[in-house]
Amino acid sequence: MNFRTDLALERHESIKNNNPEGVDFDAKEKSGIKISHITIINEKGEDALGKKKGRYITAELPSLEESADNLESWSTVLSDEIKKLLPKQEGTVLVAGLGNRDITPDALGPECISLLLATRHISSELKASLQLSSLKSVAGIVPGVLGNTGIEAAEVLKGIVNQIEPSAVIVIDALAARRLERLGKTVQMCDTGVSPGSGVGNKRQEIDIDFLGVPVIAIGVPTVVDGITVALDVIEACGVELDDVRRGNILKSEKMMMVTPKEVDLMIKRASKLIALAVNRALQPLMTVEDIMSIVG
Amino acid sequence: MNFRTDLALERHESIKNNNPEGVDFDAKEKSGIKISHITIINEKGEDALGKKKGRYITAELPSLEESADNLESWSTVLSDEIKKLLPKQEGTVLVAGLGNRDITPDALGPECISLLLATRHISSELKASLQLSSLKSVAGIVPGVLGNTGIEAAEVLKGIVNQIEPSAVIVIDALAARRLERLGKTVQMCDTGVSPGSGVGNKRQEIDIDFLGVPVIAIGVPTVVDGITVALDVIEACGVELDDVRRGNILKSEKMMMVTPKEVDLMIKRASKLIALAVNRALQPLMTVEDIMSIVG
Amino acid sequence: MNFRTDLALERHESIKNNNPEGVDFDAKEKSGIKISHITIINEKGEDALGKKKGRYITAELPSLEESADNLESWSTVLSDEIKKLLPKQEGTVLVAGLGNRDITPDALGPECISLLLATRHISSELKASLQLSSLKSVAGIVPGVLGNTGIEAAEVLKGIVNQIEPSAVIVIDALAARRLERLGKTVQMCDTGVSPGSGVGNKRQEIDIDFLGVPVIAIGVPTVVDGITVALDVIEACGVELDDVRRGNILKSEKMMMVTPKEVDLMIKRASKLIALAVNRALQPLMTVEDIMSIVG
Amino acid sequence: MNFRTDLALERHESIKNNNPEGVDFDAKEKSGIKISHITIINEKGEDALGKKKGRYITAELPSLEESADNLESWSTVLSDEIKKLLPKQEGTVLVAGLGNRDITPDALGPECISLLLATRHISSELKASLQLSSLKSVAGIVPGVLGNTGIEAAEVLKGIVNQIEPSAVIVIDALAARRLERLGKTVQMCDTGVSPGSGVGNKRQEIDIDFLGVPVIAIGVPTVVDGITVALDVIEACGVELDDVRRGNILKSEKMMMVTPKEVDLMIKRASKLIALAVNRALQPLMTVEDIMSIVG
Repeated sequence: MNFRTDLALERHESIKNNNPEGVDFDAKEKSGIKISHITIINEKGEDALGKKKGRYITAELPSLEESADNLESWSTVLSDEIKKLLPKQEGTVLVAGLGNRDITPDALGPECISLLLATRHISSELKASLQLSSLKSVAGIVPGVLGNTGIEAAEVLKGIVNQIEPSAVIVIDALAARRLERLGKTVQMCDTGVSPGSGVGNKRQEIDIDFLGVPVIAIGVPTVVDGITVALDVIEACGVELDDVRRGNILKSEKMMMVTPKEVDLMIKRASKLIALAVNRALQPLMTVEDIMSIVG
Repeated sequence: MNFRTDLALERHESIKNNNPEGVDFDAKEKSGIKISHITIINEKGEDALGKKKGRYITAELPSLEESADNLESWSTVLSDEIKKLLPKQEGTVLVAGLGNRDITPDALGPECISLLLATRHISSELKASLQLSSLKSVAGIVPGVLGNTGIEAAEVLKGIVNQIEPSAVIVIDALAARRLERLGKTVQMCDTGVSPGSGVGNKRQEIDIDFLGVPVIAIGVPTVVDGITVALDVIEACGVELDDVRRGNILKSEKMMMVTPKEVDLMIKRASKLIALAVNRALQPLMTVEDIMSIVG
Repeated sequence: MNFRTDLALERHESIKNNNPEGVDFDAKEKSGIKISHITIINEKGEDALGKKKGRYITAELPSLEESADNLESWSTVLSDEIKKLLPKQEGTVLVAGLGNRDITPDALGPECISLLLATRHISSELKASLQLSSLKSVAGIVPGVLGNTGIEAAEVLKGIVNQIEPSAVIVIDALAARRLERLGKTVQMCDTGVSPGSGVGNKRQEIDIDFLGVPVIAIGVPTVVDGITVALDVIEACGVELDDVRRGNILKSEKMMMVTPKEVDLMIKRASKLIALAVNRALQPLMTVEDIMSIVG
Repeated sequence: MNFRTDLALERHESIKNNNPEGVDFDAKEKSGIKISHITIINEKGEDALGKKKGRYITAELPSLEESADNLESWSTVLSDEIKKLLPKQEGTVLVAGLGNRDITPDALGPECISLLLATRHISSELKASLQLSSLKSVAGIVPGVLGNTGIEAAEVLKGIVNQIEPSAVIVIDALAARRLERLGKTVQMCDTGVSPGSGVGNKRQEIDIDFLGVPVIAIGVPTVVDGITVALDVIEACGVELDDVRRGNILKSEKMMMVTPKEVDLMIKRASKLIALAVNRALQPLMTVEDIMSIVG
């Protein structure tokens, strides 16, 4: 393929045969959001889409613009989808914000953790006195990036999972998409985990149930397009066939580059607010939007 | 032209006729840095390069990697060039850091101001008691960006210039270059001022001697390549002639995008340290590198 | 007096004679907030309270805890009071966030500006197309602190006021109070301007109508208690009379110290959200809380 | 005792009998820094000083002011003392920066990690090609604070220690001192671990060899004085005997307050630079100050 994407939906779209074996697909619309459910059910499906077996839910928002109404209705739709992926058992949920807070398009994960309602440390006595007995146990962590810590995010999380034994892990990360117009407007939720650093192109140890030993729900928003992808898309749009030498030159020069909108600060701010609200609502189903926002917003 | 650049040197390179009328050019090397002096001496030169009359000094660093030795020798070269552009008269120099600190590749200016040795408020009595009587008067400001403040950076600076009456203004800003390999490794210093926002593609009121009423030295480092530029470069490299419709489509889809390295945080950190040190040394010629770094570093 | 405070209300409370000549005082309660109006009407009042002639409105919130309901009702009360102080004429309002964003209890002003709805740069055409024709013109600025910029905040503001000619200036700043229990829970709004740096004890050029030439509304929240004030309060509470030598020793050792709550980060975050919302509502009376929060929150 | 302090030296000073049983003490001076070695050798010593058995090294810097010379000579002295506490065996050293980066006087630990030379992820091949074969393996982590993450810093570290199996852990944290004049100017290094949150008064699970299973070196700088300590010191200085009711009232009102210098941002910046440099030098004994600073500074 001519491009790199973290979105199962874009893989699915790129297949000429829209009904590949081993893949279930359906789509619907809720509150103006297009929701696609892709289930990769076997190895044939894995080969067809180049993604691991599991469920991938993609929400395509109608716009980047948020209003109070949108924030409420969109976070309702997203939290409902997240709840479908979360295991039913009780216990702490650990939420991890991957990425580098010093690189704006990679800061989605850390930003979400700063808006997370962490509750694991609140004693039952305090909950009772606050009339919050129904509060679920949630923990949050920003594991940092390999270049700064010398430790893979997956290793940090595995250590913490072994220590606090959550019933599930939610990882939030910035993703790479193929199409520029998706940036900040698409949310992928899946039960197959994540490869941190894919948003900026460095593959790391996968963070998934095999490695962590508990279910891993990954939530991501594309915030960059890979430089190679943009370059090759432009060429393809011009109807040019590249020979291997030219393709090699392009791959080499573009591989460390990312393409991102000029208003990336606003995009990250809005997306973080929406994702954090959706996660908080999925984890605390009895709290209202207003109560959550007055605490963490 | 097929591309946008803030570098006079890239304009000069793009001209087939390397000796355009109205333009003086010479190049030399110092401490491994290639220094190019371009002087646009009249309107013919302005037309040829598409830049305003004045002096443009470009320093091309051999690498992004800094060592203690490089930092000392490179900042010596840069501060010597900056001193050539600074007016000789005494008085305060106001240093302005343009750009948006919330967008990593646009944060160069604000980062430099956080490393600036501001001294205007130190009384002569205190200077004398600190044995710093030779300390020059320097002020610093981060004017912010139009979208956040509602005020153009040029207006903020004009107001402050009228109020504190400096003898010169130095503006530091992130730039756009044509070539990806220049990012973080090239420094342009000129006496013609700057259009803020060019690094991320939004043209604003020029900040120059005509608008501010005092000499304006602009110092910039390219940190992004415009999306259009990358796309059109790729196409050109493939030997394709675009018709107007296709060109229009590309211009439309790419115009809000910027291309930047994945390690943009390190690039900005290193470039800010180097530029701030060079500016501090140019403004305080009697202080040592070590003394400046121990105060502001 | 044994203490330093920026609150007219605390000056008033400290006077044995609760009905000083030249001072009007009345108090009421709205939505659980105690609102005190103090008007200093002449020089006798100035001498009695040690504050400049003008109106001082103090709101005492029932708690630090915010809920969605509180945020709406409290911001309604505060914005109503701010509107009483704002001049009626049309024109841009410039909002300035004083203080140092790198010192948590001093970051109130800069934090508020990051939540300000700046609109001055939005053209009438764009407003019309967004159906926002009633949007008032607002600009925002963070002037920085003298130690970092070499320029007094008052000078920065005077320059900008001369340049953009607003009809009024609102300055937001962290204040010092006498009583620890007030921190984060009291809001003072006045039409007499402000001395920046008082929150951390460094007196600067006053920012007021005399200096700027336009009405100046100051809004402040106490976030620190002066070290001297705490020490002398403790001593007084113990019924000790200090001799001049001992008093001098205390004044010397404590003068550079501030006392602040351990959860100062939460206090600043909550207070900034409330003040920014109240200011945005006062300046955009036709927008709803939800619309403002979805844009800037 | 009338006060709270994290410094063994202040405990020692407060004892009338300067030669308590079970405690070894000696002091010397190096490069203008007063170095005190306190060894608590048995339970009698523990009872006398109220601190755990082990070695406490305290460095008292002559001033807050740094120059290039000071930075080099002071970091030499500190890194020599840190090396005395580090175990000799090879293996990764994990450095943890405790504290809350959103509260200026508590941000020392996170700031130091941002200046840490993390190397654990650099492959032997890359080290060889960079001629850095002698580079020691170092990892860094900012575990966050309980209120934001729901996880105790000790738990985060225990999980990571079990995962990456370092040969030792260094924890860096802000401390509370008794005396205001010590803030930012004293460094305590010990081999007994640390209670996170003591700098701001919230006791947590101890981080020590018993809990983590590997040697724990703690490095701290006092950045706050407890509100109670200041109040009670003032009272004592006035020669007043408090009865239990008055003492109780003071303890109650002051307990959530911290006292810190007004220029706390500069204090944290300087102390972080010095501590990070000393730690980097202790862990990479073959690198020069200049090389370390050009990479991380």
